[in-house]
Amino acid sequence: MVVTEIRIELKPGVADPEGKNTKKTLELLGFEGVKEVRSIKVFEVEMDMPPAEAKEAGEEMCRRLLANPVIQKFSVQIK
Amino acid sequence: MVVTEIRIELKPGVADPEGKNTKKTLELLGFEGVKEVRSIKVFEVEMDMPPAEAKEAGEEMCRRLLANPVIQKFSVQIK
Repeated sequence: MVVTEIRIELKPGVADPEGKNTKKTLELLGFEGVKEVRSIKVFEVEMDMPPAEAKEAGEEMCRRLLANPVIQKFSVQIK
Repeated sequence: MVVTEIRIELKPGVADPEGKNTKKTLELLGFEGVKEVRSIKVFEVEMDMPPAEAKEAGEEMCRRLLANPVIQKFSVQIK
């Protein structure tokens, strides 16, 4: 059994309203020194196959379902 | 400048409908061997302070805003 970590984040330059609003709220709560907040989505996928195959399957999952290639980039790691 | 990675995931035993539905959809798309999908939220926070202080600030952010302690656990790492 292999656990893959699929990480989906916004491409550089794409607006991140969730990150921006989180930053603003942290500042309202009194946190100082916060320069930027980026929101990222992670899926941990347990697969019953060899690691190399699981990595490839994870990338295919991103291309077909999990990521939006217009605004997001993804990476797949075996844990 | 320090980048902290704040990772928020569901506690064991808590239902994960996003993960469950993702698994189901992956199967409908023809992906085989998927045993489980867990959804996780990550915030990358850039802070202007020493690493030890940033880690503590990140944990305080989880307690006060980012995480729901009833159903979620969090971890903070310096990248």
